[in-house]
Amino acid sequence: MIKNDLFLRALKGEVVDRPPVWMMRQAGRYLPEFMEIKAKYDFFTRCKTPELASEITVQPIRRYGMDAAILFSDILVIPQAMNIAVEMKPDIGPWLPNPIRSERDLDGVVVPDIDQSLGYVMRAIKITKEKLNDEIPLIGFAGSPWTILCYCVQGQGSKNFDKAKQFCFTQPQAAHTLLQKITDTTIAYLKEKITAGVDAVQIFDSWGGMLSPDDYGVFSWQYIQQIIDALKDHAPVIAFGKGCWFALDTMAKSGASALGIDWTCSAKNARYLTGGNITLQGNFDPTRLFSPPKEIKKQVKQMIDAFGKDKYIVNLGHGILPNIPIENAAAFIEAVKEYKAT
Amino acid sequence: MIKNDLFLRALKGEVVDRPPVWMMRQAGRYLPEFMEIKAKYDFFTRCKTPELASEITVQPIRRYGMDAAILFSDILVIPQAMNIAVEMKPDIGPWLPNPIRSERDLDGVVVPDIDQSLGYVMRAIKITKEKLNDEIPLIGFAGSPWTILCYCVQGQGSKNFDKAKQFCFTQPQAAHTLLQKITDTTIAYLKEKITAGVDAVQIFDSWGGMLSPDDYGVFSWQYIQQIIDALKDHAPVIAFGKGCWFALDTMAKSGASALGIDWTCSAKNARYLTGGNITLQGNFDPTRLFSPPKEIKKQVKQMIDAFGKDKYIVNLGHGILPNIPIENAAAFIEAVKEYKAT
Repeated sequence: MIKNDLFLRALKGEVVDRPPVWMMRQAGRYLPEFMEIKAKYDFFTRCKTPELASEITVQPIRRYGMDAAILFSDILVIPQAMNIAVEMKPDIGPWLPNPIRSERDLDGVVVPDIDQSLGYVMRAIKITKEKLNDEIPLIGFAGSPWTILCYCVQGQGSKNFDKAKQFCFTQPQAAHTLLQKITDTTIAYLKEKITAGVDAVQIFDSWGGMLSPDDYGVFSWQYIQQIIDALKDHAPVIAFGKGCWFALDTMAKSGASALGIDWTCSAKNARYLTGGNITLQGNFDPTRLFSPPKEIKKQVKQMIDAFGKDKYIVNLGHGILPNIPIENAAAFIEAVKEYKAT
Repeated sequence: MIKNDLFLRALKGEVVDRPPVWMMRQAGRYLPEFMEIKAKYDFFTRCKTPELASEITVQPIRRYGMDAAILFSDILVIPQAMNIAVEMKPDIGPWLPNPIRSERDLDGVVVPDIDQSLGYVMRAIKITKEKLNDEIPLIGFAGSPWTILCYCVQGQGSKNFDKAKQFCFTQPQAAHTLLQKITDTTIAYLKEKITAGVDAVQIFDSWGGMLSPDDYGVFSWQYIQQIIDALKDHAPVIAFGKGCWFALDTMAKSGASALGIDWTCSAKNARYLTGGNITLQGNFDPTRLFSPPKEIKKQVKQMIDAFGKDKYIVNLGHGILPNIPIENAAAFIEAVKEYKAT
C-alpha cells in the first residue's frame, strides 16, 4: 500500500493532520533538471519515451516531496491517437495542421485501440510506479472532450477559441460526433491507465469557462459526466473546469471524488456553490508564485484556513508558469507541510 | 432632449415597453462600410480624426438603429496621452515598445492636460452629437486602470498577463503609483467627455477576471470605485468587468447606474449576485452570433425573459467579433425590437 496516503485520504474526505499538496504542471518547465532533458529531446519524444516521461514525473517529487505525482504527458496525445495530427511548435505551442472544420473532416477520425496507440503511456506508468516505490500516489489525466475539441477545431491555442465555438454553433451534429468519439477514447484510455497503476485520475476542462452555462451543459459537461460515470468505481476522479464556477453545483453531484477550483472562486464561494461536502482542490493564482517566498507562505496559510484542512487538496488554480523561481515553488510546498491550524 | 431615451430610462430603472439594445464594439470591424474606411486610414488616424471617428460611430446606427451609439475610440488613447508609446500592429494588436517594468519606467509617465492631449476625442464627440441629432444617446468609455496597466506592463495582449501580474505582486508600490496616475487621467478624461456631450460613460475592465477576488479589490476595484465616485453625479456610469462575477455584490453598491455582465454569468445568477435592484447590461456570448439568425432570435428572446424587460439593457457579453455576418448582427437587434413579453 501507499506509504503517504494523505492525498487518497483527502479524496475520500477523511480527517487529516494537514491537507495534501501537489501542483498542476509540477513536472516540467520551471525545473532546471527538466530543462536539461528538454534541451535534448523534443516534446513528443519526452511524452512517448517511457523512461523520459517517468523521469520527468519524479523530478519534482525528488526536489520538493509533493504528496502526489502526476504523470508527465499531454492532453493532446488523445487526438493524436485518434488520427488527428498534432505538432508542438516552439513559439506557438500546439499546432494541428489539419483542423476539423466540417463533418467530412471527421471521416478519418477513429476511436483507436489504446494499447496500440497509447501503450507508451501505460509503460511510462509502470516505470513511474516502480520509481515511486509506493511512497506516494500517481495521478493520471486527460483533457475534457470540449477542451480537446477546442484544439482539434481551432488548430492551435486561442484567446477565445472562436473557430471551435463557431463549429459547435453552426454544425452541432458534427461537433457532437467528434465529442462522443473523444469521450469514448478518453474512457478507454483512462481505464487502461488505472489498470496500468495510476491511483486517481483528473479531467482538465481548461476551456469550459469560455462557454455560457447552457452551452457548457450541452458541449462540455455531459461528456465529462459520461467519463466520471465510467470511471468512478475504478478510481477516484477529480474534475477541474477552469472558469466553470457556474457549474460547480452540478459538478458536485456528479460522482467525482473532488473538484478543482480556480483562483477567481474564493474558498467561501467554492464551498457554498458545491454544497460544502465534496473535497475541493486548488486554488492559488499561479502568478502569485511571483510574490516573495514569505508572502507566498502567508497566503498559503490563509488559503488553507479558508478552505479548511479537511476535504481539501492544496494546489494551484491552474498550471505552474515556466518562469517561477524554484525557491518560490519550494515556499508553496513548505507552507503546506508546516501548516498548523490556528 | 433625446427622442429615443429608452437607454437612459433603463439606466434610471424606469419601466419600459422593451429593453434598449446596443452592442459592445458595434462601431467597427464586422461592418463593410467600416472596412472601407479601415482600408484608407490606419488605426490611430481613425481614432484621432474627429470626422472619421464620428462617421464610424454612426455607421452601425444607420444600418441597424441601435438605441445608443458608443464613440469609436480605443482604451489605449489614455496611456498614449500619458506619454507611454502605443502602436497598433496589424497581426499583433496593441504594441507598446517601451513597457513599464520598474519604478524608474514611471519617471516619464504624466497625468496629462486633457484638452491638449485628447482634445480630438472631444471634437469627435461634438461632431457625433450633431450627426445623431438628439435621436439617441451617445456613450463615452474608458478602460479600467487595471486593464490599462495590463497593456502598459505586458506590452501587448496576452492570455494571462503574467508580466503585468508579476509587476503588481513584486513591485506593488510602483503598480499603485501607475494605477493612481491612470485613475486621475481617466477621471479628468471622462469628465471632459461628459462636458463635450456624452450622455453616459462605460468603464471596461476587460482583464479584471484574471485576478483573484482579493487582488481584484486591491489592484482593480478600488480605482474603478474612485472613477465612479467622481463621475456619478455628472452622468450615469456603467461598470463592466469581464469575468468579475465574484465582485458583482460589491459593484452593485458602488453608485454605478448599471453593471455589465458576461455570458458565463446567467441572468439568474447576475440578478442574485447584484441584489436584484440595479440595471444590468449583457450578456449574449459574442460567438453565439455565429448561430443561424433564427436561433439568435430565439436565444435573445429567452435572454430578455430571463433578465426581465426592466432594469435591463440588451448587449453582448463582450465585443462583437470581426467575422460575424451582418445579417446575424441584424437578427440580434431585430429580436430586441420585436420583443413582447409572454
